[in-house]
Amino acid sequence: MMLSTLELAIELISRPSITPHDAGCQSLIANHLQSIGFIVETLRFGEVDNLWVRHGQTEPLLVFAGHTDVVPPGLLKQWQFPPFTPTVHEGLLYGRGAADMKGSLAAMVVAGERFVQAYPDHPGSIGLLLTSDEEGVAINGTVKVIDYLQAKGDRITWCLVGEPSSVNRLGDTIKNGRRGSLNGHLIIQGVQGHVAYPHQADNPIHRFAPLLKTLCETQWDQGNEFFPPTGFQITHLNAGEKVDNVIPGELEVLFNFRYSTEVTHTQLQAVVTRLLEQYQLNSKLTWRHSGLPFLTPAGTLVEVTQQAILEVCSYQATLSTAGGTSDGRFIAPTGAQVIELGPLNATIHKVNECVRVEDLETLATIYQRIIEKLLR
Amino acid sequence: MMLSTLELAIELISRPSITPHDAGCQSLIANHLQSIGFIVETLRFGEVDNLWVRHGQTEPLLVFAGHTDVVPPGLLKQWQFPPFTPTVHEGLLYGRGAADMKGSLAAMVVAGERFVQAYPDHPGSIGLLLTSDEEGVAINGTVKVIDYLQAKGDRITWCLVGEPSSVNRLGDTIKNGRRGSLNGHLIIQGVQGHVAYPHQADNPIHRFAPLLKTLCETQWDQGNEFFPPTGFQITHLNAGEKVDNVIPGELEVLFNFRYSTEVTHTQLQAVVTRLLEQYQLNSKLTWRHSGLPFLTPAGTLVEVTQQAILEVCSYQATLSTAGGTSDGRFIAPTGAQVIELGPLNATIHKVNECVRVEDLETLATIYQRIIEKLLR
Repeated sequence: MMLSTLELAIELISRPSITPHDAGCQSLIANHLQSIGFIVETLRFGEVDNLWVRHGQTEPLLVFAGHTDVVPPGLLKQWQFPPFTPTVHEGLLYGRGAADMKGSLAAMVVAGERFVQAYPDHPGSIGLLLTSDEEGVAINGTVKVIDYLQAKGDRITWCLVGEPSSVNRLGDTIKNGRRGSLNGHLIIQGVQGHVAYPHQADNPIHRFAPLLKTLCETQWDQGNEFFPPTGFQITHLNAGEKVDNVIPGELEVLFNFRYSTEVTHTQLQAVVTRLLEQYQLNSKLTWRHSGLPFLTPAGTLVEVTQQAILEVCSYQATLSTAGGTSDGRFIAPTGAQVIELGPLNATIHKVNECVRVEDLETLATIYQRIIEKLLR
Repeated sequence: MMLSTLELAIELISRPSITPHDAGCQSLIANHLQSIGFIVETLRFGEVDNLWVRHGQTEPLLVFAGHTDVVPPGLLKQWQFPPFTPTVHEGLLYGRGAADMKGSLAAMVVAGERFVQAYPDHPGSIGLLLTSDEEGVAINGTVKVIDYLQAKGDRITWCLVGEPSSVNRLGDTIKNGRRGSLNGHLIIQGVQGHVAYPHQADNPIHRFAPLLKTLCETQWDQGNEFFPPTGFQITHLNAGEKVDNVIPGELEVLFNFRYSTEVTHTQLQAVVTRLLEQYQLNSKLTWRHSGLPFLTPAGTLVEVTQQAILEVCSYQATLSTAGGTSDGRFIAPTGAQVIELGPLNATIHKVNECVRVEDLETLATIYQRIIEKLLR
């Protein structure tokens, strides 16, 4: 049985695999690849299904990586077609996960299948790493599979993550890195009291105001050739009940850094800690580091991918490190070259998520071309 | 029947008149005063019981004003004695309302009773204005009674509000005015988005930060002989769900001015509105003016009260305009001289609210002396 990329994408989208559920997507892929000679390992960590599939025993090892889980559909009534009833309309395939990233998964599987059928005795190995916990907390997903692979000595040479990297047309953008992500949880302590007696209270909002301004105005770095400047955003601010006669006793602040390779997370932490001391705030600060930045600046994988896109699409792909974190952050530290290449991201995480049907086949062709350039 | 101040206070505290409920306090007082010649009018507005009691038909009219409602008891287990089971322990009378202000009410009634029994044909009139809606929204309480009295031509010459004005010892402080209170509700509009794509969002917290600092640093006025400088407090700040990957679309801010007679509420509103324009914020601002400032700077009532305290307690009372709003704000605009004099306020609105038993009788004596000086 040889499915088309569209047929396989439709099969995957019809399985409502809202994170962290896989809903049978991985077994569909595993059974299919097993039937054509891939070795399958299912790796369940906690509630999360993961899949490791490999064809070949030697290095170099080219891995396609991705996730079967999708974000929730949001307001159903805003969907033109039911989110888990994949529907082709005017050249577009609609459904939750169409672009992020079941379309890519279908293209990977088809590309891999075509390659191993054409070159059953190819040098090196081709692998597929899937998780159902990329959109969620990402604790029992790719990071654990990588641990497992490292423990047994499987070393990834090149990794292509199928995240929707394209902006205006398929393949126009390759992500060759991602910014780091650092989260801070700050409590500014004050003293609660009646607004009529401010001298008996200590308003944490008023205490924090000058530092807030400084934090919002600070230029953390200038970025570099590959990264935009480090960004700082306050994502949550809360103090006081919704009343007008009580000075609140505490202010809670959540903030996030998306940082370039020009700073480290420990440098950012030190700057914030120093500012808190400088402004003499009675505060409690805890950190959660949710991803080191990674960068694959040049080398075989980037070159081959650009060449494949140029051949298939006749235009040059741009390198970018913008956007959110991806599971690439867990793979890059192993020393692998990591890039991301997938469909247009315009509709991801939105209602009426869709992908061009034509792009699905083109993407499979690009992926296949990349495999051929690396493993033939 | 002639009750002592303590006995009457106990009767009142045992009635659980949590705002806006009166729980029979006013009828207890009304029946007693009616039996000794006072004319009683019960005035119910909405859910709120109010009482207007008068002895005499002519001016000048001296009014004692107060409220029978109390704030909720809070955590019962933290009370040494049940809040509505008045208990005398080591010279203190415990119970919700003991200081705010059922002790004062008892002292007023006893002082009035003693006075009219000693001087049944006194010149002028003595009145008692009670509401059960002072601790609540204060919409159907004193403000409506004042409307009623003005409509029928009753003009208050002097008004003594029994709010707990004393700080360290009974009668050490007379409140001869109160600051105004102005509340603002501000929404700063931004554009929600993913923290990884800040250029597609507009963080309202970052927008507001410079203005927040300015608001917290602004000196609104210097105050004057009677008023401390106008104070500004932010009482509530909220933006964002408690997540670290979404830039919030909106910031909500509640703030309060306690303002002196050196500015007006319209001036304060104009300054804030101008600042919002100056900082070019996309915002929505609504105001709630919860009380004009009032001041009774000098004159008969202040002098007589200071004299009475000096005679009874042998010390000089200080004039003050500090603290929260009181129903005096509704009475002063009629042209009446208004002061507040009552027990120590250290335990009001707290668990284990209490008043010194000795102070209850002393307060009744001071009140009686004030009546005598004004109406004999």
